[in-house]
Amino acid sequence: MNILIINAGSSSIKYQLIQMPSELIIGKGLIERIGSENATVKYKTKSVDTEEVMLIPNHSAGFKKMATLLMDPDQGVIANVNDISIVAHRVVHGGNTFSDTTEITQEVKDKIKELSILAPLHNPHNLEGILLAEEAFPTARQIAVFDTAFHQSMPVKAKKYALPNELYTDHRIQAFGFHGTSHKYVSEKAISLLKLKSSKIITIHLGHGCSITAVRDGKSVDHSMGFTPANGLIMGSRSGDIDHSLIFYLVNNLGYGMEEVNALLSKKSGMLGLTGLRDLRDIEAKAKTGNKECILALEMNAYRIKKYIGAYTAAMNGLDAIVFTAGIGENSSTLRSLVCTDMDYLGITLDPAKNESKSSNIREVGSTEAKVKILVVPTNEELEIAKQAFGLS
Amino acid sequence: MNILIINAGSSSIKYQLIQMPSELIIGKGLIERIGSENATVKYKTKSVDTEEVMLIPNHSAGFKKMATLLMDPDQGVIANVNDISIVAHRVVHGGNTFSDTTEITQEVKDKIKELSILAPLHNPHNLEGILLAEEAFPTARQIAVFDTAFHQSMPVKAKKYALPNELYTDHRIQAFGFHGTSHKYVSEKAISLLKLKSSKIITIHLGHGCSITAVRDGKSVDHSMGFTPANGLIMGSRSGDIDHSLIFYLVNNLGYGMEEVNALLSKKSGMLGLTGLRDLRDIEAKAKTGNKECILALEMNAYRIKKYIGAYTAAMNGLDAIVFTAGIGENSSTLRSLVCTDMDYLGITLDPAKNESKSSNIREVGSTEAKVKILVVPTNEELEIAKQAFGLS
Ligand SMILES: Nc1ncnc2c1ncn2[C@@H]1O[C@H](COP(=O)(O)OP(=O)(O)O)[C@@H](O)[C@H]1O
Ligand SMILES: Nc1ncnc2c1ncn2[C@@H]1O[C@H](COP(=O)(O)OP(=O)(O)O)[C@@H](O)[C@H]1O
Repeated sequence: MNILIINAGSSSIKYQLIQMPSELIIGKGLIERIGSENATVKYKTKSVDTEEVMLIPNHSAGFKKMATLLMDPDQGVIANVNDISIVAHRVVHGGNTFSDTTEITQEVKDKIKELSILAPLHNPHNLEGILLAEEAFPTARQIAVFDTAFHQSMPVKAKKYALPNELYTDHRIQAFGFHGTSHKYVSEKAISLLKLKSSKIITIHLGHGCSITAVRDGKSVDHSMGFTPANGLIMGSRSGDIDHSLIFYLVNNLGYGMEEVNALLSKKSGMLGLTGLRDLRDIEAKAKTGNKECILALEMNAYRIKKYIGAYTAAMNGLDAIVFTAGIGENSSTLRSLVCTDMDYLGITLDPAKNESKSSNIREVGSTEAKVKILVVPTNEELEIAKQAFGLS
Repeated sequence: MNILIINAGSSSIKYQLIQMPSELIIGKGLIERIGSENATVKYKTKSVDTEEVMLIPNHSAGFKKMATLLMDPDQGVIANVNDISIVAHRVVHGGNTFSDTTEITQEVKDKIKELSILAPLHNPHNLEGILLAEEAFPTARQIAVFDTAFHQSMPVKAKKYALPNELYTDHRIQAFGFHGTSHKYVSEKAISLLKLKSSKIITIHLGHGCSITAVRDGKSVDHSMGFTPANGLIMGSRSGDIDHSLIFYLVNNLGYGMEEVNALLSKKSGMLGLTGLRDLRDIEAKAKTGNKECILALEMNAYRIKKYIGAYTAAMNGLDAIVFTAGIGENSSTLRSLVCTDMDYLGITLDPAKNESKSSNIREVGSTEAKVKILVVPTNEELEIAKQAFGLS
């Protein structure tokens, strides 16, 4: 069975065609800068690897282009639309409604739309992707996989804020959590690798967005992102945790507008604000030449992660493993090392040689004697989405 | 030598006359509701304990009333103003300027005034107290003790936010930390009781405001409150940590005004928002009758503290003792028990009987076998201020 995974953003469509249960990727690609004359269209199969720059005026055109490529007589991988059994959509916000992967009905679409108020930058585009997929692949089942679903298991004490109760009961103001598909995928990999029955694991997703989850017996019990993906760890351009009163100070005393502050915190802060650089590779390279801002930014980043590890160890009263994943987590031995240094009181000790060795496989990088395992687990959100969609079929 | 301790607030003056080095309190009192016809004037000495309700139109009148009481032929404790050698003022915000107790000069006053921008609810009143004390006690030395001073030792990685650098360098946007006098006092008591040379301690100040400090070798290295005393632990009516994006959501989607949100977070949240009650005693009593909101609020409060304990244990890579202090920390065996339950992975185990026994003395309430000591240390900010002022003399 072929499952098409769709991740539709504000100006992009990311797609992957996966054969299940073999888990074989038969085609994938990315359309970026939708709405411009210089949109890029990337497409890759076993035998083809192309990139075109062209006019893609809107998402609808993007979808048509993708379908055309997949069914192209020369470069394609399927004969016609009927070869796709399921289209599985990544949807960012499932609110309190969706704690699991769901077949898309009119009701589900209404709900995703309604939840746009909680994720205005994501849900509307995810929904547009669904509508276009229904048109383009009318014979396929449409399935939604929610970023927030994995965190629906968080206990109330972890997800509720200390605000007037009616904000929780009447206005759904609570922590939802994000990156759920990734945290679920890597925690399951870790649990199966370590053959744990009962387990206390911390998964650390470090990409452009960064988040950390306490996973007890396979279930998310606490998580660093909250009502939105703004807080918690230091990210590429997001501040993560701050004293919220700063917002009032910036507006009342430094003359910022509200939306300006919002943009400052989400687009000009984090590692970018601290170093002027976006890519962790550049920051690491500059730190190696002795640049003080870059050295400090890496230290701050690691220090925040350390504190969350401690917090979740206390929350679970124990720790079997920590798991690094995503672009930075999988590749930056520097950051892993900064996080794991001087953490032996909690049972965490790195094996420096193992940590340095490059690999794209799941691997242990902790010292063998240490109480807590340290794993690097490459994440694969598309595969997790395919698995969940396949599980529903 | 007699030292008069002054804590001047927006509508109150709290004072204590302490003989040093004997540490004897020879008189103390509180003037509240300044600016009203029904101001209350409390005054207590070894032989007198009075409370008057009267017109106190302003702080100047309050100061005169206090001086009159202290020097009253019948009820007083000193003969004339010359019997006061030092007036020591609690000043909330010392910014980055004051890392220690300081003799008050014109420059210091200018600086305290300038720092009012960072503590508009406190510094102006603290300064007014200084000016009035200079007038009322012209022969006494005037000394300032800053709430923020103890936290000046925090390393940059703990006090800097992941925001654009210029906010830190040009606008002093950073964590300052508060309740410093209390955290210093109780951590020193703990270190001396436990006879520790090198030490890793966490002090937990739970009063109306609540905060927690990581104290390494007697120095604050991290702290839960930041740029203002708004964040960190759940407090009487302050939310503590939230996802800061909530502020934008409340304004943009729920129609709140900025100042309304500010008031909501600082005056209607925390335990009050969760339970409708302000006093922890009432919350505990209602929880005992099975009230779900009160039970949950206590759990959330303790859970937040647990996570900070874990975070600071990771930050210091170890833990010798945790110290509970202030109204709740000293008196609520319930909250201490919620915090210390299921914390043995970090080395924390309570002795339930010791925890329940009432006392107003410094005491250990942990299990004797546990790695980490658990102490209850009554705080005494006035005495700490007196000691510091005496130390300068
Ligand atoms: N070898 C590497 N060393 C350090 N950082 C890396 C390395 N490879 C990728 N990264 C970082 O990973 C981040 C992107 O992670 P990724 O998981 O791809 O992001 P996204 O959140 O967009 O999925 C970038 O900051 C990039 O610098
Ligand atoms: N026996 C007690 N049990 C529980 N809470 C108590 C007890 N005594 C005092 N408290 C709580 O202590 C808090 C006030 O603490 P305190 O340190 O006096 O405050 P402040 O921050 O104003 O100095 C109140 O919430 C009060 O309910």
